[in-house]
Amino acid sequence: MTYLLIHEGEDREYLLAAGETLETDLGVLEVPDDPEPGQIVETHLDEPFTVRELRGPDLFNHLERTGAPMMPRDIGIVVGKTGLQSGDRVLDAGTGTGVLAAYLARMGVTVTTYERDPEFADVARENMAMAGVEDRVDVRSGDVTEAVDALAETDFDVVTLDTGDAAAVVERAPELLVPGGFLAVYSPFVEQAREAIQTARDAGLRDAETLETIQRALDVSDRGTRPSTRGVGHTGYLTFARNP
Amino acid sequence: MTYLLIHEGEDREYLLAAGETLETDLGVLEVPDDPEPGQIVETHLDEPFTVRELRGPDLFNHLERTGAPMMPRDIGIVVGKTGLQSGDRVLDAGTGTGVLAAYLARMGVTVTTYERDPEFADVARENMAMAGVEDRVDVRSGDVTEAVDALAETDFDVVTLDTGDAAAVVERAPELLVPGGFLAVYSPFVEQAREAIQTARDAGLRDAETLETIQRALDVSDRGTRPSTRGVGHTGYLTFARNP
Amino acid sequence: MTYLLIHEGEDREYLLAAGETLETDLGVLEVPDDPEPGQIVETHLDEPFTVRELRGPDLFNHLERTGAPMMPRDIGIVVGKTGLQSGDRVLDAGTGTGVLAAYLARMGVTVTTYERDPEFADVARENMAMAGVEDRVDVRSGDVTEAVDALAETDFDVVTLDTGDAAAVVERAPELLVPGGFLAVYSPFVEQAREAIQTARDAGLRDAETLETIQRALDVSDRGTRPSTRGVGHTGYLTFARNP
Amino acid sequence: MTYLLIHEGEDREYLLAAGETLETDLGVLEVPDDPEPGQIVETHLDEPFTVRELRGPDLFNHLERTGAPMMPRDIGIVVGKTGLQSGDRVLDAGTGTGVLAAYLARMGVTVTTYERDPEFADVARENMAMAGVEDRVDVRSGDVTEAVDALAETDFDVVTLDTGDAAAVVERAPELLVPGGFLAVYSPFVEQAREAIQTARDAGLRDAETLETIQRALDVSDRGTRPSTRGVGHTGYLTFARNP
Repeated sequence: MTYLLIHEGEDREYLLAAGETLETDLGVLEVPDDPEPGQIVETHLDEPFTVRELRGPDLFNHLERTGAPMMPRDIGIVVGKTGLQSGDRVLDAGTGTGVLAAYLARMGVTVTTYERDPEFADVARENMAMAGVEDRVDVRSGDVTEAVDALAETDFDVVTLDTGDAAAVVERAPELLVPGGFLAVYSPFVEQAREAIQTARDAGLRDAETLETIQRALDVSDRGTRPSTRGVGHTGYLTFARNP
Repeated sequence: MTYLLIHEGEDREYLLAAGETLETDLGVLEVPDDPEPGQIVETHLDEPFTVRELRGPDLFNHLERTGAPMMPRDIGIVVGKTGLQSGDRVLDAGTGTGVLAAYLARMGVTVTTYERDPEFADVARENMAMAGVEDRVDVRSGDVTEAVDALAETDFDVVTLDTGDAAAVVERAPELLVPGGFLAVYSPFVEQAREAIQTARDAGLRDAETLETIQRALDVSDRGTRPSTRGVGHTGYLTFARNP
Repeated sequence: MTYLLIHEGEDREYLLAAGETLETDLGVLEVPDDPEPGQIVETHLDEPFTVRELRGPDLFNHLERTGAPMMPRDIGIVVGKTGLQSGDRVLDAGTGTGVLAAYLARMGVTVTTYERDPEFADVARENMAMAGVEDRVDVRSGDVTEAVDALAETDFDVVTLDTGDAAAVVERAPELLVPGGFLAVYSPFVEQAREAIQTARDAGLRDAETLETIQRALDVSDRGTRPSTRGVGHTGYLTFARNP
Repeated sequence: MTYLLIHEGEDREYLLAAGETLETDLGVLEVPDDPEPGQIVETHLDEPFTVRELRGPDLFNHLERTGAPMMPRDIGIVVGKTGLQSGDRVLDAGTGTGVLAAYLARMGVTVTTYERDPEFADVARENMAMAGVEDRVDVRSGDVTEAVDALAETDFDVVTLDTGDAAAVVERAPELLVPGGFLAVYSPFVEQAREAIQTARDAGLRDAETLETIQRALDVSDRGTRPSTRGVGHTGYLTFARNP
């Protein structure tokens, strides 16, 4: 099992397995075989680290990246708009770093995910082990568009797509989804979002909508309250549609 | 078990239990004892309804409301930012319609939720049964701020608050949360959000941030693509913080 | 000269010329030949109207519309980003209701504006008279794209475009503009905005940027402060570029 | 008269008066006594600079700053929402860098502006000369709140405020404004905006509204179109109200 070890000064954080040893610039850190959340573990240089249970945002912050992973807020919006729940079967592509797949698996979802790049798929498999969900996420190295015929025999509750050629899967979504199942497509560009929603409508899916999310932090200080002057940029459009 | 029955013309939708009978203006609708998703059920006037499995957005659309429930996108952002996962224990207040509690329970989360109004609490209990999560959600009729001493003996993974006096619980959050556990506060007004984040910081929680979410639909037609001219209004600020 | 006459109850507002007589449901209203702002004028039924000087937002609210005029905030952003100033010469198309042209003329700008529909051009001319700027705005009935060769002999300080085929003028902008002069293009749709900025860049204009503006009202009440729950929708993208 | 001289490589820009000489790292630059826009002027090292007429955005970019000046888009929104026009008399405080005052003066507006800091007022006066509007802008060193009694004898068309204690002037706005005249208040913080709109309402002004503007650039490339990932931060709330 994996834990987050966080230095008292909050300047170092590591994801580590029970029993693992790590050499850090603050000394050698040995994780106990059965650590308790809240327990203090000291390095051989007496630097204190607190043990924490692993949660979704830690995966976003610490998994090895093979690209820009979907942000926790966008993962959350996918969960909220599709009602993802324990026991669901999800078809996902492309895997990338695997943060979305790991989040879903930790909710009790079974995920079949496709990653075109074999080396990225290997990293994703290691990430799933780190996230403790290797038994719930099947990372397949390959092109999901070529696998659609075979996949159509399974009933998926939700299909999540974050690939440049999502439309090729969207047009087959009615064969892949259970009645009432949801499609969610993440598209950085307007043109992709347009193609996704038009393909979803043409395929007979209902309630198709493309959403854009702008999120800003509120700065709260003694001087007063205001939206952050730093600004928050665009991540991606999210297109949702539902199988009749 | 509850199912969504949806009329072919998409003009009627009902949440109904297996075996339930409903008189509608399209005729009497009898749900089979063990319906299959996708199955067509006809009323005695031969009007066809399709059976669908229930999903989170159906709860938002069909549970009996005792106030404005949190929207699926905001529920999702809470899930994404706190990494809610199967097996988590959540303390929630106020229950309201119970859509947040039901969403979380369907992810395998165990929820203890407080609702001050006893009649609203009764409605929420019925809603939990409708959502199939009555064994995972303990709806308590009462004031959470008076129960904090007793609750502090349980370790919660996440505390979610949507009440006018959230600050009284926020200041006790370190006693209520596991190490690394998250606080999430929903506040319609700036002043409440300001109080929530300041109380969270004063209580020693870290990574405190208040987020505002603006979400817009993209209109896609033959004329072109543009953000909706209808606009999407403010729902609430979400404040997050983490127990060290 | 035109004045705004506003009923004490703020339920009626009329744009009227000095000396004009209007029959209203509150009685006959006779505007004096030389009214003073703030003066009260009573109808023959003793209903009091206050005389106000005309300002830009009154034009937006009261000119006869032949389509959706550019909103005051968008007119303002055009003024701010191009630095429109007294003495400027502006080429504008399409005129539409003429609110932009009237605003600019009231700043001391000389405007040549093209409207393809001859009837709309007639309405715009009447609107310019109502706004008191008929000597500063030359409303031409015709297609600006066919007039570019002739227009290129004039030096314009700013070119403002709000037409479906703006790109045909954008590509000639370097011939139309003084050194350092600005182009401003209003585009409801993404595809038009994309074409505008790409054409501007290809034509050798510099500092090209397309901006989207989201504007929300703040609701301030005894309950607290929050962004409006009503939302404010999209109007149009504004693309700016500058002649070297 | 002042001109913008811009180096061919677009890596240097200077605001210079006709006849002025500047030593630069690209050589000595002598501005002719009567330069023509578009004319090329070479330094003694043969580096070419193009002469441009000065426009508003150049003032924002090049005037000497004594604080963060109001951005061109916010200046524009003030102009659009209040309908500022040639011949208007404006009362402004605090002057700061003077970009707003200079913009308005270049539209033919006469501006009386108060700056509390005498040194900042001196800089603002130099900036007005640079902008060519020293005869239209009266920069007064002092506190506007102490001058309200005297000022109330003048009729202003618009009052623009960007000071921490704007409310003290807002409550006197009905004495300062002509019938139908506008108030515009710029407030970085929510609390200030709340005070401004409440004071405006209490003072009997009508149509009071506080607006927040979120502006984003659209990234247009061969890959596609999307809102900028850089984000644009908050500047300030703008509160508008009108004298009855």
